[in-house]
Amino acid sequence: MENINKLDVAILGATGAVGQRFVQLLAEHPWFQVREVIGSSRSAGKPYGDAARWLLNGNPPSAVAAMTVLPLDAPLLSPLVFSALPKEAAIARELELAAAGHVVCTNASANRMLPDVPLMLPEVNHEHIGLIDVQRRQRGWSRGALVANSNCTVMPVVMALKPLVKYGIRRLHLVSEQAISGAGYPGVASLDILDNIIPYVPSDEQKMESESKKMLGDFRGDAIDELDMTVSATCTRVPVVDAHLVNISLDLAESPPLADILEDWQTWQAEAPIPSLPSAPRFPLQYINAIDRPQPRRDRNAGRGMMTSLGRLRECPILGYKFASLSHNTIRGAAGCSILNAELLAAQGYIEGFHMREAALPM
Amino acid sequence: MENINKLDVAILGATGAVGQRFVQLLAEHPWFQVREVIGSSRSAGKPYGDAARWLLNGNPPSAVAAMTVLPLDAPLLSPLVFSALPKEAAIARELELAAAGHVVCTNASANRMLPDVPLMLPEVNHEHIGLIDVQRRQRGWSRGALVANSNCTVMPVVMALKPLVKYGIRRLHLVSEQAISGAGYPGVASLDILDNIIPYVPSDEQKMESESKKMLGDFRGDAIDELDMTVSATCTRVPVVDAHLVNISLDLAESPPLADILEDWQTWQAEAPIPSLPSAPRFPLQYINAIDRPQPRRDRNAGRGMMTSLGRLRECPILGYKFASLSHNTIRGAAGCSILNAELLAAQGYIEGFHMREAALPM
Amino acid sequence: MENINKLDVAILGATGAVGQRFVQLLAEHPWFQVREVIGSSRSAGKPYGDAARWLLNGNPPSAVAAMTVLPLDAPLLSPLVFSALPKEAAIARELELAAAGHVVCTNASANRMLPDVPLMLPEVNHEHIGLIDVQRRQRGWSRGALVANSNCTVMPVVMALKPLVKYGIRRLHLVSEQAISGAGYPGVASLDILDNIIPYVPSDEQKMESESKKMLGDFRGDAIDELDMTVSATCTRVPVVDAHLVNISLDLAESPPLADILEDWQTWQAEAPIPSLPSAPRFPLQYINAIDRPQPRRDRNAGRGMMTSLGRLRECPILGYKFASLSHNTIRGAAGCSILNAELLAAQGYIEGFHMREAALPM
Amino acid sequence: MENINKLDVAILGATGAVGQRFVQLLAEHPWFQVREVIGSSRSAGKPYGDAARWLLNGNPPSAVAAMTVLPLDAPLLSPLVFSALPKEAAIARELELAAAGHVVCTNASANRMLPDVPLMLPEVNHEHIGLIDVQRRQRGWSRGALVANSNCTVMPVVMALKPLVKYGIRRLHLVSEQAISGAGYPGVASLDILDNIIPYVPSDEQKMESESKKMLGDFRGDAIDELDMTVSATCTRVPVVDAHLVNISLDLAESPPLADILEDWQTWQAEAPIPSLPSAPRFPLQYINAIDRPQPRRDRNAGRGMMTSLGRLRECPILGYKFASLSHNTIRGAAGCSILNAELLAAQGYIEGFHMREAALPM
Repeated sequence: MENINKLDVAILGATGAVGQRFVQLLAEHPWFQVREVIGSSRSAGKPYGDAARWLLNGNPPSAVAAMTVLPLDAPLLSPLVFSALPKEAAIARELELAAAGHVVCTNASANRMLPDVPLMLPEVNHEHIGLIDVQRRQRGWSRGALVANSNCTVMPVVMALKPLVKYGIRRLHLVSEQAISGAGYPGVASLDILDNIIPYVPSDEQKMESESKKMLGDFRGDAIDELDMTVSATCTRVPVVDAHLVNISLDLAESPPLADILEDWQTWQAEAPIPSLPSAPRFPLQYINAIDRPQPRRDRNAGRGMMTSLGRLRECPILGYKFASLSHNTIRGAAGCSILNAELLAAQGYIEGFHMREAALPM
Repeated sequence: MENINKLDVAILGATGAVGQRFVQLLAEHPWFQVREVIGSSRSAGKPYGDAARWLLNGNPPSAVAAMTVLPLDAPLLSPLVFSALPKEAAIARELELAAAGHVVCTNASANRMLPDVPLMLPEVNHEHIGLIDVQRRQRGWSRGALVANSNCTVMPVVMALKPLVKYGIRRLHLVSEQAISGAGYPGVASLDILDNIIPYVPSDEQKMESESKKMLGDFRGDAIDELDMTVSATCTRVPVVDAHLVNISLDLAESPPLADILEDWQTWQAEAPIPSLPSAPRFPLQYINAIDRPQPRRDRNAGRGMMTSLGRLRECPILGYKFASLSHNTIRGAAGCSILNAELLAAQGYIEGFHMREAALPM
Repeated sequence: MENINKLDVAILGATGAVGQRFVQLLAEHPWFQVREVIGSSRSAGKPYGDAARWLLNGNPPSAVAAMTVLPLDAPLLSPLVFSALPKEAAIARELELAAAGHVVCTNASANRMLPDVPLMLPEVNHEHIGLIDVQRRQRGWSRGALVANSNCTVMPVVMALKPLVKYGIRRLHLVSEQAISGAGYPGVASLDILDNIIPYVPSDEQKMESESKKMLGDFRGDAIDELDMTVSATCTRVPVVDAHLVNISLDLAESPPLADILEDWQTWQAEAPIPSLPSAPRFPLQYINAIDRPQPRRDRNAGRGMMTSLGRLRECPILGYKFASLSHNTIRGAAGCSILNAELLAAQGYIEGFHMREAALPM
Repeated sequence: MENINKLDVAILGATGAVGQRFVQLLAEHPWFQVREVIGSSRSAGKPYGDAARWLLNGNPPSAVAAMTVLPLDAPLLSPLVFSALPKEAAIARELELAAAGHVVCTNASANRMLPDVPLMLPEVNHEHIGLIDVQRRQRGWSRGALVANSNCTVMPVVMALKPLVKYGIRRLHLVSEQAISGAGYPGVASLDILDNIIPYVPSDEQKMESESKKMLGDFRGDAIDELDMTVSATCTRVPVVDAHLVNISLDLAESPPLADILEDWQTWQAEAPIPSLPSAPRFPLQYINAIDRPQPRRDRNAGRGMMTSLGRLRECPILGYKFASLSHNTIRGAAGCSILNAELLAAQGYIEGFHMREAALPM
């Protein structure tokens, strides 16, 4: 039942943990279809079904399982490329592909902080898409582009904060409890995490501090003006399969009552056309009125893994406000967000050759 | 191989999770021997081995397993009484027993915040023992006494802070990741915690804030002068069997370099005779020089469960300092601490009929 | 978007773990709609959303959350009743309701082994439905009926064995590794199962032996002629949220090659109209060609939790054949199976007032 | 407090999971002291404390932490060598060292099934020690020797069966539930085992079948006459840190009443001098009279990890008898057993230069 009008996409790093999420989430996508899967030299030349040790539930979609894995340096035909490459491999290859005319939506951290690369979460900062024009102009690209999504632990933070930016966010204290799937595969050894906590996640604390400022910043003229706030992050790993929970304390310049914040969250919706994009949840946030929520296992799949769940809003004697925020780390926090970014790019005409028909995006 | 000079002790709530730890830790105790075990009406009259569903490793000591469980209102013969009663049952009974001449060392929260009840952790505030004299004078008790130990999550906090009080603790931000054994038995349902986090622990956040101020306070004249600091606590439950980890951020009036704090911790020792008490670890604190420690499974048994493990000391952009602290919640954080309190009382002559011989306490 | 032609159903024991699965699985059911929820005296009179501590992902459907929970003895209006009652409560009440004209599909074990109660799994023994006629004749019921589904651990066994009955099953050796959700809520205490196995599951070993013989038996005349085989079962509990895995060794009268058994499984389909029932998976069995499958987390949701996954078929030096079989215990193994039973009853005209339209069941 | 009379020992593969257990268990050994630690080329030249990522509780003993790791081909001074090498590395090196005059006690599977290598568990088959004389004679070794211990899952099986060999063991059906530590480090990825079971453990099923026959065999003349029995094994991995549980069904030539088997187990003791060896438990077996035991977390440390715990003895409708058996897989099942083997060799004069003094072995 293949739609001949669907856009061909390629997945870099398709056999890894995040790569598999791309394959899974794109299996029934109304606009995109997987045409090329790219893996390491160890995987290249094999059928995807053999090369990928499938980590998700069930089995890989049969159409993709039958595809031959391409090597990293293979020339690609697909106009749209998703990247789940390891950092080192991503640095140069993503830029090369964008220069060659591909629109690259990446989950890799390699190029996230380049000044002309949008670090985008449509609901939070869709206007950063304007950086693509800057990028094309500065780099001399005509059709290509490189757009990144943030670290998976930053996601539940910026989703919760976006509606509160208007109060003036001054200080942000974060303690995360992160799922094992955030470390990829094989990732965390079971001997390190069963009946245990690891009170440190390599490099995530630094990313929490830098990426949140860029994402919540303003796109002014040709660049992002980062949000001026002080961030202190502690990242820990817990024996949970999926979903990152962040305990957030917050200092605001203004002092809204708790009820106002609740209402800000409950009524918040992204601007059109975002809520109508295929992967967007109708409401990006849900506040759960139960003292012991959000919980990873019970709330991670809200909105097919694309909603952020909030709870426990209360006063913090030190910073003013505190609450908990939770997102699915490999859906909203990784592949799902990249796909949503691509959908926005497609809807806004940034992908040449993809023409939205009316039926595709009811508005 | 029983020592006829050992002091008889009774355990209230002996069949529960903390009660069992008392039984286990007292099995080979050089000064004390279990003589009476007290349980609920459901257990009373049965042999302890039948009444107690043993939750710890192995089996209960055979001598105790054979004892008949006494009802809660039974008159007791033992001069020393340990209490692991539920809160409601503890309120009146502990005071009655103290009034009747027993020295009661309790792990229950019921009477912790009474102004004349020492909330004691020998290494932290042994001088609060002076409240017993106040207590006896005010209540007209001659031999009896009531001494409490703190909540199990407060323990790793005050242990870490005691050597830093001299710098002026102004603000304290705490996020705990607590083990399931802290909730007793049956306690946390497995369906609530497997592959999950519960971002709330009933009543612990409030205790973190109140108990830490009392414990770090000064004994002045007849009362405790609580430490004047602002505390913000968030308590979460994680799928770990034993040991509570607390992520601590700290604002100090002075600004010592990190190296000074490290040295304060590494050189800190309790005053004599505390380090020589049978249950005391030689050093109450260990700082672990590895970026991913302390960890519950690997560090909870340090010093037979009586040491507090510290790690990750670094600057906090908001409060100045941050680090992680971990203690075994049912040993140092509960039964072990009550026993250490009793040892201090015994060593200092607060338990009538127990005379220290030179051999007992090498100093 | 409610269908006015849907059949009203009541759920007994609606607030418990299995009751919640009924509520969840019926939320979007094309034929049935929840109209009455029945709970214990503690829940009766409260809105379902308050009375039920929701254990599944997300939140209860809002329509059901708003319903008032009825007491166990309330007269019911719904023609179809699902029962998730505890055993003791089920014994009399289920028969009363059937006598009063309700069709009762029960997951309780109370009445499973009554000679005139079908213990039904449509794919395995739909012809046992004939017992309803016996039941009605013998008990003088006109419209009512009582149909049970089996224990959740028996399910993956009989599903795997049904296509092999033709070879003559003589001996069956079973060792299960069962999920915690099989014990209901609060069920297994986390202190009993984290980093642990419990090598015993109360009453399940006996059920494995008795229920499998009844389910694989022949309906002859007025009664079930149980399958004559020897069964040895060992049931253990492991720290897994959902899905029971059973390690099966099997002695057959004939000696088919392994390839024949594989083909029997892979080609097996239930008779019409079963594969077209709303809750039926298209194929009830899947054999997974990977040496380390089936696995609970990865395979439990196959066919929306209604497929049984098989793997590791090989020779057993003692009994001839061995393999592993896995099913979701609260979907296929409980509520999902009861619903499938009710769908078959509806399709075959056993529920008065429910008339199949052609559109409802494409065949 | 070093004993100048202790025997120097070397540990091959000292930085791995089992190597660390050797280091830990030998830390306070009364007869042996670690003098040389041997690692991979990646570790060689570094201090052990830096080269070994310590996986066990706490930290490595400081004396060993300071030792420089030697490369695999380094000539060794220690008369006694423990091997925790990976299989491939072990094959040649263990034989070379034995040929060079070292007594090698290995946990590696590489040379276990060589006809002249004793596969020894002192309580089970100490008389197999006689193979060393065969080995020395056949291979022309004067002082060297090579002694292996079995696979960690075979251990709880042969321990339980040894007292029953007299009844004639004919058929043995085994289903194991094994801990993650059996796979070494990093071993099992957490994404593969959290909230999951893996129904297959590479190569263990075959070892269960072959090693149990050799271990329970008779030493006759110059060789082991393997026990003639039929073994069917299924090995599964569960989310448990330490200890393997095996569900055992058993067919005996004779038909002793259950009470006789219980008594055989409860009274069984190894022959002198085994019970007096430093690492030997006083009783090798404990039968636990509780329907839900043995359990990994609660029973693995019995006898400091050297006892085997049994439970659930009952009739098996197919094979006659069934029960559960459990041992700590990295203590009794690996390093602890190698050390006990070495103690027996020392006590019986197989290690040149080590002379038992009366005090060392009270008999």
